[in-house]
Formats: sequence, structure tokens, C-alpha cells
Amino acid sequence: MKKLNVAMIGHRFMGKAHSNAWRQVGRFFETPSEPVLKVVCGRDRQEVERAARQLGWEESSTSWQETVARADIDVVDICTPGDTHADIAVAAARAGKHVLCEKPLANTVAEAERMLAAVTAAGVVHMVCHNYRRVPAVALAKRLIEEGRLGRLYHFRGLYLQDWIVDPQFPRVWRLEKAKAGSGALGDIASHSIDLARYLVGEITEVAGHLQTFIKERPLRPGSGELAPVDVDDAALSLLKFEGGVVGTVEATRFALGRRNHNSFEVNGSKGSLAFNLERMNELELYIEEGPDSGFRTVQVTDARHPYMQGWWPPGHIIGYEHTFTHTVLDFMLAIDEGRIPSPSFEDGVKNQKVLDAVERAASSRSWERV
Amino acid sequence: MKKLNVAMIGHRFMGKAHSNAWRQVGRFFETPSEPVLKVVCGRDRQEVERAARQLGWEESSTSWQETVARADIDVVDICTPGDTHADIAVAAARAGKHVLCEKPLANTVAEAERMLAAVTAAGVVHMVCHNYRRVPAVALAKRLIEEGRLGRLYHFRGLYLQDWIVDPQFPRVWRLEKAKAGSGALGDIASHSIDLARYLVGEITEVAGHLQTFIKERPLRPGSGELAPVDVDDAALSLLKFEGGVVGTVEATRFALGRRNHNSFEVNGSKGSLAFNLERMNELELYIEEGPDSGFRTVQVTDARHPYMQGWWPPGHIIGYEHTFTHTVLDFMLAIDEGRIPSPSFEDGVKNQKVLDAVERAASSRSWERV
Amino acid sequence: MKKLNVAMIGHRFMGKAHSNAWRQVGRFFETPSEPVLKVVCGRDRQEVERAARQLGWEESSTSWQETVARADIDVVDICTPGDTHADIAVAAARAGKHVLCEKPLANTVAEAERMLAAVTAAGVVHMVCHNYRRVPAVALAKRLIEEGRLGRLYHFRGLYLQDWIVDPQFPRVWRLEKAKAGSGALGDIASHSIDLARYLVGEITEVAGHLQTFIKERPLRPGSGELAPVDVDDAALSLLKFEGGVVGTVEATRFALGRRNHNSFEVNGSKGSLAFNLERMNELELYIEEGPDSGFRTVQVTDARHPYMQGWWPPGHIIGYEHTFTHTVLDFMLAIDEGRIPSPSFEDGVKNQKVLDAVERAASSRSWERV
Amino acid sequence: MKKLNVAMIGHRFMGKAHSNAWRQVGRFFETPSEPVLKVVCGRDRQEVERAARQLGWEESSTSWQETVARADIDVVDICTPGDTHADIAVAAARAGKHVLCEKPLANTVAEAERMLAAVTAAGVVHMVCHNYRRVPAVALAKRLIEEGRLGRLYHFRGLYLQDWIVDPQFPRVWRLEKAKAGSGALGDIASHSIDLARYLVGEITEVAGHLQTFIKERPLRPGSGELAPVDVDDAALSLLKFEGGVVGTVEATRFALGRRNHNSFEVNGSKGSLAFNLERMNELELYIEEGPDSGFRTVQVTDARHPYMQGWWPPGHIIGYEHTFTHTVLDFMLAIDEGRIPSPSFEDGVKNQKVLDAVERAASSRSWERV
Repeated sequence: MKKLNVAMIGHRFMGKAHSNAWRQVGRFFETPSEPVLKVVCGRDRQEVERAARQLGWEESSTSWQETVARADIDVVDICTPGDTHADIAVAAARAGKHVLCEKPLANTVAEAERMLAAVTAAGVVHMVCHNYRRVPAVALAKRLIEEGRLGRLYHFRGLYLQDWIVDPQFPRVWRLEKAKAGSGALGDIASHSIDLARYLVGEITEVAGHLQTFIKERPLRPGSGELAPVDVDDAALSLLKFEGGVVGTVEATRFALGRRNHNSFEVNGSKGSLAFNLERMNELELYIEEGPDSGFRTVQVTDARHPYMQGWWPPGHIIGYEHTFTHTVLDFMLAIDEGRIPSPSFEDGVKNQKVLDAVERAASSRSWERV
Repeated sequence: MKKLNVAMIGHRFMGKAHSNAWRQVGRFFETPSEPVLKVVCGRDRQEVERAARQLGWEESSTSWQETVARADIDVVDICTPGDTHADIAVAAARAGKHVLCEKPLANTVAEAERMLAAVTAAGVVHMVCHNYRRVPAVALAKRLIEEGRLGRLYHFRGLYLQDWIVDPQFPRVWRLEKAKAGSGALGDIASHSIDLARYLVGEITEVAGHLQTFIKERPLRPGSGELAPVDVDDAALSLLKFEGGVVGTVEATRFALGRRNHNSFEVNGSKGSLAFNLERMNELELYIEEGPDSGFRTVQVTDARHPYMQGWWPPGHIIGYEHTFTHTVLDFMLAIDEGRIPSPSFEDGVKNQKVLDAVERAASSRSWERV
Repeated sequence: MKKLNVAMIGHRFMGKAHSNAWRQVGRFFETPSEPVLKVVCGRDRQEVERAARQLGWEESSTSWQETVARADIDVVDICTPGDTHADIAVAAARAGKHVLCEKPLANTVAEAERMLAAVTAAGVVHMVCHNYRRVPAVALAKRLIEEGRLGRLYHFRGLYLQDWIVDPQFPRVWRLEKAKAGSGALGDIASHSIDLARYLVGEITEVAGHLQTFIKERPLRPGSGELAPVDVDDAALSLLKFEGGVVGTVEATRFALGRRNHNSFEVNGSKGSLAFNLERMNELELYIEEGPDSGFRTVQVTDARHPYMQGWWPPGHIIGYEHTFTHTVLDFMLAIDEGRIPSPSFEDGVKNQKVLDAVERAASSRSWERV
Repeated sequence: MKKLNVAMIGHRFMGKAHSNAWRQVGRFFETPSEPVLKVVCGRDRQEVERAARQLGWEESSTSWQETVARADIDVVDICTPGDTHADIAVAAARAGKHVLCEKPLANTVAEAERMLAAVTAAGVVHMVCHNYRRVPAVALAKRLIEEGRLGRLYHFRGLYLQDWIVDPQFPRVWRLEKAKAGSGALGDIASHSIDLARYLVGEITEVAGHLQTFIKERPLRPGSGELAPVDVDDAALSLLKFEGGVVGTVEATRFALGRRNHNSFEVNGSKGSLAFNLERMNELELYIEEGPDSGFRTVQVTDARHPYMQGWWPPGHIIGYEHTFTHTVLDFMLAIDEGRIPSPSFEDGVKNQKVLDAVERAASSRSWERV
């Protein structure tokens, strides 16, 4: 089988998840090529070497510029903070590499558009890693909507609730720094909800919004007395209008105690409704109107006939978080093989960024803003 | 025991619930007086006579004007559509009657203020029937928040989802007519969520909003070919800012298939969270941060030590919808006995109306509006 | 409307629930007659007078013998502990009264048979108050099974879990005394599960069983140092074989902390399954096999087309524990009017008692026993 | 790092799960050695070669006898049907290999004892793969019980419900053949519940039981008109007595429509309760008695401080079925390194088998049987 040589830039949380996906995909699915974990790239030599060993990469490097230029590399997989996405992706595209990039695609619309222009010009395959589209239950939701099982859509209701920074003593990490992360809950997690909204319902045309920072200063390091400002949002709230008359809400916060990773949504249509929560990601709540004995049913999305599940286990044997990356990598490989652009592409990344941008503008202008 | 003579104006859905409350309150609670279901009032003689028999009223009348003026009446209980509240309440107050009024207090802020002025001038006891404050689980939520169990509050998230008019053939009833109902989902059900938000969190200072009518014409009567315009909102969405930095959302819709009466909310604070859903109104979901083994716990609010539950059954034996009216009537009677104004008063009704009004203004101006 | 004069014997927990049912039934349902709460009977004059006032009875009496013999009484409603059921019921039947009797029908099979013989000989209408048959969700379960929606039945799984005596300092009340209560969890709550099993599935032919008493001595009174033996079971476990090849389990305990009133069951058939829990009594979990997107659906049994619900509130507005007694009384009144024996009759009471007896014999013989 | 050379016998469902565990363990956990997937063994050359490629084994073999005798093999991992466990395990032990064996350990007590004798005599490390002990939520349950958080234990209630053979046209596969599988639901899934009961509560001393076969003949092959007898149980029901006065039930069935892989249990003690369901394996339901505001809390067992979770993802990011095998393999490797016998050992396998045997005897004798 032909090889697909991968270079991964960044090796922390997302790097661990992506590495696993590249290692596992061929064990559970028929892939058009064999992925080779060629080289992982990071700034600190010792750490990147340790990561290479731990995560299963053949080589390590401290220069992403050299790495993306290597002749033997087919794919560049970007797992770094958002402020570096654009430069790496553009260079990779110019070097003729297919590019998989973590979300949000960039920290600004301008950067995202520059990235889209570069991959388009280069004719390479590109994909943004909104992995939650490839939760089997979410893919099933998409299928049911496309089949018309919900009828005409009326409502989208998205929540992404976390609680990891409720403690005011939690330090000011890079995700709380605008220069690195671009924004807070908005870009980190609302971007997922917005991607799901676009995926399931369609394009967003107008938004109202509010951004809130509850804790304005935090220790620079754990336990440190030195404080640093938090210049991103702790919570992002928005109202949405979609093409075609659907209305929606998206709320994202890191201040909802007890909600560890509550990425949930509900869609209501004229014939049915569905609801999902990532904390129970193997389940889809489905309501089909059939008279008084109807009710939300808990579909265990673990059957071989459900999206992606033919690769895994018998019904009722659940999969976990990292499997969504395996599905993403699988579809990225299939797209490369078939020479087409998968979804969500960098174009989706740009559109997502435009919604985030509109929310920021609306939060500032105190008015509805067009996307 | 001294008697408390009640006159009830209106006798349909709310009239049935209020009548039950007046009949039952003394059977399950120690009341300061004995309520007498003296007279029920309605426009159609035959129907109001039938209602009197069915619901247990001594007499019936077709004139609310005469009724509220009767010397032997102590309390006027208003269960009519919103467009008639003001006239009845003002007349009742001028006649020196204590007034219990269904929600929303009125169809406009001006009407509501006129009502408040009248009861204040007359020195009578007044209460608006936001009965959901007196769900034991909601009263427990209030107690926990007041005790500081949730710490500093950050988020309120209110949903009131119903599905009774999703069918476009459902007729244009009075609740879909602006002249009678004032507004649609906004005044009918969002008003409950806003009342709960104010009760649990505090005053709302600013709102953004959107009102949507999905089905713009409906049959004038069931099965009729004649269509009538729907001039109220099918769905009302809002973002809220509260005094003290809490942020919130309230969404109300009659287009969420499968959600029969999903009046739910969640509050997140620095030490804990709580969540409630009227469809499981005997339960409160409570999260108290105590480390990794914490989790949302389902409190069965059925213990004699829980609010109002000493009157009913042993733990685990649940109560239903109509009990909330019994608790409301109980507290109204206690307030009359003690000569104080209960909560929510007409002042709360005015404040609620001002929030509804701000949402309407914001929906129209496409900007945040001060309450 | 013709009157139906009721005498109620006993006035504590069950008396409160039955009184409410007699008062409420005519307010929410069309009844063939008007129930009159004529006389309540108890041993202590002061307490029974207080009960009469509180619960709405015209008169009180301290002699059940005189009461059941009164010419103006149509119905005797027995709400006393089990050791007194037989004498009261037999006397009432001989006096020509219709008899409604709390469960379990008696403390022994012999007593139950004597009662059945008496009501049969007298030709009066008789009913045992297994009120949970008349939870709307349970009646819906019955309807679905009878319609064949579950296909051939395979399994019944009944649990009745409570936790009110886990504390060893909880006193030795009458329910823990064999002479009064007959048995412990077995007769008090397993009897409900067994009634539901018989109602939904059919007759039980053979049982294996185990009875366990965890706390063998308790304070005679709250806080008392004087101990009294507990000579009934704290927990009753059984395996069941039904006619027609269905197999089942019933477990009842008062030692399941956190389970306040967890009367739950599940039925599995060749086409579907259903599950119920009294703590969420307005819901029925229904599974109909329709391929991989099937799932247990939560039916909110609150629609006017659901059993008994046409009397109450709109969809999503739940009812509570005491409503099951109202439904029982309604059906009892209809049966009297139509001159037929309702279900569950004293014959059901005898059959239930025979199952309880078989479990006791099996627990003692350490072998399966025929019912 | 030193190598640990593994030979795996069998390569279907369990072989896929075990292979994944051996491949993944070193990527997520610090292991004392590096597992090498040396050789996989199967009866059909073509299939085992394909399996080796797919699952990542260096070599394949069609002779387990030769394989277990190879000098370069350290560990034999047995993933075959139950009727072959004993011969393979005994040979492996005699060859000085550490042995990991799928459950149930054997098809009879005699076989299991022969296996235990062999590994003990050989002084090799042995473990039976009851992987559900290593669900983090189950390991947390164990920790909480050991810490005394539940107090004195009273009840264990285990269910293992599946539905994969409800269709009578489902063919008579090897799991429905007594000669190969030993028993049906009893050995396949009740054995898991019994292992969890022993793990969490203690030794079982006496049982009552019932075995039921609902569909007595099935197609020999899918769609075949030729029928073959089903000589194992479709459902196994039991009552249990434990050392120390705990009572329990275990029910296992493959005829519970809608229950895909419902391996659930509940434990009740004097201070608290806990409940678990494998279909939501990242959650533990925990009740701690703290007064009326207590309730079952849903602990998301996804925190780094929870058992095994430090290896995986941030809180709220769930793991799946196969991870339990990774944890099992990790603990097996640690035991080998430290020269101690892990739990559950072959001794546990023997004890488990004795309980299964007692249930079979009790089902046959219609009496309680000592284990």
C-alpha cells in the first residue's frame, strides 16, 4: 500500500489526539494509503524528542519551516496555538503539502482568508479539524436532517459549557491571552458550536452578541503572586439568524461549574427534533412526531449501520473522544486519495471566522451585525 | 375560623387551576382563614353556571363590575386574558379588595403601572400569579442561592419550550392575537422565565432580543378555510445583563417539537450550579464543587423539610402542576392575614413587563436596550 | 345527581389520600354519582374529629362496627393496617356495602379468602386499592401490551426500593411488627410490584425467594433506649415464573439509600420493551424495535388521549401521587354504577396474597414453591 | 526499555480488543517494558495472516502449540472460545509463559482448577480478563467502597441485558452451543456481573437460580432453513447471599430489546449507594446521605485524579470500550514487572466459575445451592 508521510507541527493536547488518529486509523478502517508518522515539530528540542517517542513519530524537529519544506512530506498537520496557523499553513501550501489545521482556522478573518487563498492557489487538499462533525451521533443528526426527518427547521440551540477556569487562582495560560489565542471561549469553544450550527442548519447571516470576562486578572503562573491581565472573554453569548428563517442561540462559557465539556445542541423542526451532548457522545436524542406516544428517544449510536461505527465494536460498546480525530483523519485521507476538498474545508474555516468576527463586532457595537 | 370570600373572574384553564387551589389549600395546610369560593364570573351565563358547579363556586355572575363591587367579597382573583387585567384589577382595588392576578400582569407597561398605582393607593394586598416560584424545587433553588451555596453568580440560562402550535393547521386562537394576548411566546411563557430570573438572580438591566413568527396565517377556527393573521411572536430570544455582572439568556418558543412544557433554567456560580425543568418539577439538579467526585445530583424535592412539602406526602411521592397554585394561594392568604405585600407583587409584575417591553424594543431596534 | 355515601375507616396516610380522592373526583371527571364524605372512623375520638375537619368528612365515629352497619352508607373504604382488614370488610359486606380496601388485602391467604367469600356472597362491589395500576403511564403500558406493541413477552423486572428505615435509630413502628403488618417490605411494597406484574404480564406460577432483616432490634419509640424486635423482613427478593414462559424478578427493600420511592419495572418482549419508575410517574420509557435508530423514548404521559389525562391539564403539566387514588375511586364508582366488579378485585387480592405467601414459603424452604 | 514479547491466540472480537490494548498501552501510560506484538495465532492461515496485518502483529501462526512453546515469547494472551482455554493455558504455563486469559476462565470448574494448578505450579503471572473491573468508574466505585463511603453494605443488584439474539432468525452461532461456549448468557455475561459483585462486595456463599431458553431452535447459518438446537440459556436469573449478610441479584439476558450492552449494577450501604451502567461507562451515579438535599449525583469519571484517567484526556472528554483492555494490559504488565499476581487472577476465575456452577445446579435442583 502506498505511504502518506505526515508532519505534525505542535505536540501537546491536540498533538496527542492527532498522533493517535494517524496511528489508529489503519487498524480500524480501510484507508487508501498507509499513514507514516514521519516527523513531529516543536520549539523545545528535549520536549519534542520526548513527544516523538511517546506519540510514535519517526523523527522530531525544532524548525517548522524546514519541516514543511521537506520533499518527503505529503501532509502537514497543524496543532499549534491559533496565532501561528496562518504562517505555517501558507508555507505548507506553497510547498505543495496537503494541510489539516486545528480550529479555529486563524485568529482573524484576514489570516483565515490568506490561508484559504494559499491552499486554493496551491491546489492542495485542506481541512479544518472541527472534529465534532465526526462524532457518529452528530453525523447521524446530519443524515436525519438531510433525509428530511425533521422537516422544515425552526430552531438551533447550541451550548458549550466548561468549568476549568472557575477558580480565580487558575493561572493566566496562553488560552487566556488574546495575542496567542485570539479570543477566549468564543474562538476556543463557541467556534465548535458555530461550526455545528453551520453544518446542521446552514449559513448564519446576522448575530447579536455579548462577551464577558468575569475574572480580569490571574496569577501569571500557578501559585504565583504576580498577576497578569485576562484580555479574552470568559463567556460568549449570541443570538443568530440563519438563511431561510431559522433562529438560534450559541452560548459558550468556561464558568459553568459541573459542566466539564458540555458541548450540546438541539434542533427543532416541523416534524421532529434532536438533541446531543458531547459528554454522552454515543447517544443522540431523537424526537419524531407520531402522536401522543412520541417522545425523545435515546439512540445508542453504536450500530455498524451508524456513521463510522462499522470500524469499531458491537452495538452498545461505546467509543471515546479521540475517535473523532480518527474519523477526521480517515476522511481527510479519502479526500486526498480522491482529489477533492473535504468538509469542513478552509472555506468553512473562513466562514466560521466571519461569524466569530461578527459576534465580536456585535458585542462591541451593542447592535446586530451582519456576518 | 374566619372566612375569606373569594370572587374569581374567568373560569377556563387558569380558573380551573385557581379554583382547585382555593378548594385544596385548607385541606393540606394550616391557613389563617377559611377560603370561601363565593362567586365565579364569566361572559356566557350558561358556561359560567356550568363552571360554578364543576369547580365548586357558590354563585356565578356575568358581570365582573358588579362582582368586584360586592360588599361580601374580600379577594378578587383575575384569571382572564391579559387585555382585561387592568380594568378589573383597578376596579377591584378601588373597591378595597385584595387582588391576585394571573400573569403577565398586563399587556403593556402603562397598564401594569396603572394597576400598581391602584392597589398601592387602595392599600390592598396584591400578588401576580407567577406560580412557578412556588414549585418546591424552585423555592429550594432560591433558598440555596440565598444561603450562598452557589457563591457568586455568573450565568442564568432560561428556556421555555412548548410545541402546541407547530402544526400550521392549528387555529388562530386568542393567544395568537396581539389585541388580546399582548404578545405571543414572549408574554405567555418568556414572562415566566424572566420572573424566575429576577427571583433567583436579580434585576435585569439591559437586553438584546429577537422575535420570530414562523407561521404568519392560520385558520380562524379548527378546520376552517378562512385564514387570520398571526400578529404575535412564535418564538422570543433574548440576551440579558443583570445587576452585578451576571449574564443570561432567555428563550421561549412554541415550536420545539417534543418539548411539551419545558420550562427549564440553569444557574452557575463560583461554588456550584443548579438546573431545573418543569417537566420533572419534583427534582432539582444541584452541583456543589467538592473536587473530582462532584457531580450534578438529582435532589428529589419531596421531603417534609423542603419548601411546602410538609403539607403533602412522604418522600418520593410527587406532587403535580396544580399544587403550585395551592402554594401561591397559601402565601397570598398568609400575606393578607399579616397585612404585608407578598412576592411577586404587582411591582414585580411591572418590572417583568418592563423587561418584556425592552425585549420588544430591542427586537425592533436591533440593538441592546435598557430595561 | 344521586349521592354515594362513603364511610372511611382509618384516617392517617391512606386516609388522607383517599379523602382527597373522594373530594376531587367529581371536580375533574364525570362521575355517575356524587360522592358524599359521610363519616370517618378512628379509635381516638379527638384525633378522628380533627381528621374529619381537616379531611372534609361530615361526621366522625370511634366505632367501625356501628359505622359499617349504618343504613345511609353505600361504600366502606378501608384504610387501616392489614390486621383489621378482614373483620371490617366482612362486616361491611354482610351489611350490603360496597367495599374498597387498601392493600395488601389481608395479612394471610386465609383472611383474604374469607373476605372474598364475604363480598361474593353479599353480591357487593369490591376492589383492592393497588392504586399504581392507575398511574396513567402504567395504564398506558397495559394498553400497549394488550395491543401487542411489545410482541411476545419474555421478561418482567420489578423493583420497589425505599430508604426510610436505613437509620438503625428509626423506631420500631407498626409496619415493622408482624402482628400488625403481616410482613415487612414484602407485603407493604413487593405486593405492589407483584400486582403490577400480574396486571401487565399474567399469573405467577412458581417463585424462589429470600427475606432479610438487616436491623433486628430498634427503639420502641423515637429516641427511646428500650429496644423492640423487628420480626418482619427489611428486604424481600424473588425470582418468578409466569404462565406462558415469561420469567421475572421482584425485589423490594427499605434499605436502598437514595431511592425514596423507586417503584420501577421493565418489561421486555419480542417487539419492544417498556420501563417505568414511580419517582417519574408521568413518564413511560418505551422502546419499539425499528432498526438501528430505535431507542428508549421518554413518553410524557400527559396528553388528553392518555389514560385518565383528559380530566387534568394540558400536555407537559404533570400530576402527582394522590391523583392515582382519584382514578381508583373514579373506576370504583363507575363499577358500582354499572354493577360489575372492577379490577383489581378481592379476587386479585387473594391471588396477590398467594404469591406473597409462596415467597414466604420459598424463603423458608430454600426451594422454589408453587403459588 | 526492555521488551515484552506477546503471543495472542485467537483474533476475532476479543483479539481485536486485546491487540489494540497492546499497541496503545505504551502511548498513554508509563509501562515497565515495551510490549511487542510478536505473533498472532489462528486456525485458518489466510485469516490469521490478514489479522496479523490488520491488528499489527509481526508474525502469524496456525499452531497454538508451537506458538506457546516459542522461546522468545514472554506472554500468552488467550482470546479463543471457552472450550480451548484450559489446554492453551496449561501448555503456556508449563512453557513458563505469563498468561492472560479471556473470561470466563473455562467452561467448567474442573477445567478452571486445572488451569489454576498449572499457573501456580509454574510460578507464572496469571490474570483473567474481566476488563470491566478497569472501567475507571468501576475502579472508583471500588475505591469509594473501600474508603467506607457507603458504610456497611446491604444490597448488590446486577443486570447484564443485551438484545442481539431476540430475532428468532438469528443463527445458532458458537455462543449458542454448549459444547463450545459452556453456557449462554450465564457464562458470557452473568459471569461479568458476578465478577463485579465479588470485586465490589465480597464472596458469594449461596445462590438460587433459573435458566431459560426462549428460542429452542435456530437456523444453522444466516438464512438457512436447516435448524440447530440451542442448548444454552438465553437468560440466567439468580438470587445471591454474600459473606457478611449482603444480599443480591444477578440477571443476565440476551432478550431485553433496546438494551444493547446494559451491564449495570447498584450497591446500597448504610451511608450511601452507587450505580453504574456500561452504556454510560464514563459516569458513576453516587449517593451520599447528607440529609434532604442529597441525591444521586452523576460523577463524570474523567478527571486525572480518577483511576486510569491521568493517561487520557482533560475532564469531560470520554473514553470508550476498548480502553478497559488497555488498563487491564497495563496492570498485567506492572504485575509481571513486580513479580506479583494481579487481580482478577485465575483464582478469581475459579471462584467465578464456582458461582456459575452453583447457579446451574440451583436452576436444576430448584433449590438454593452452596457455592
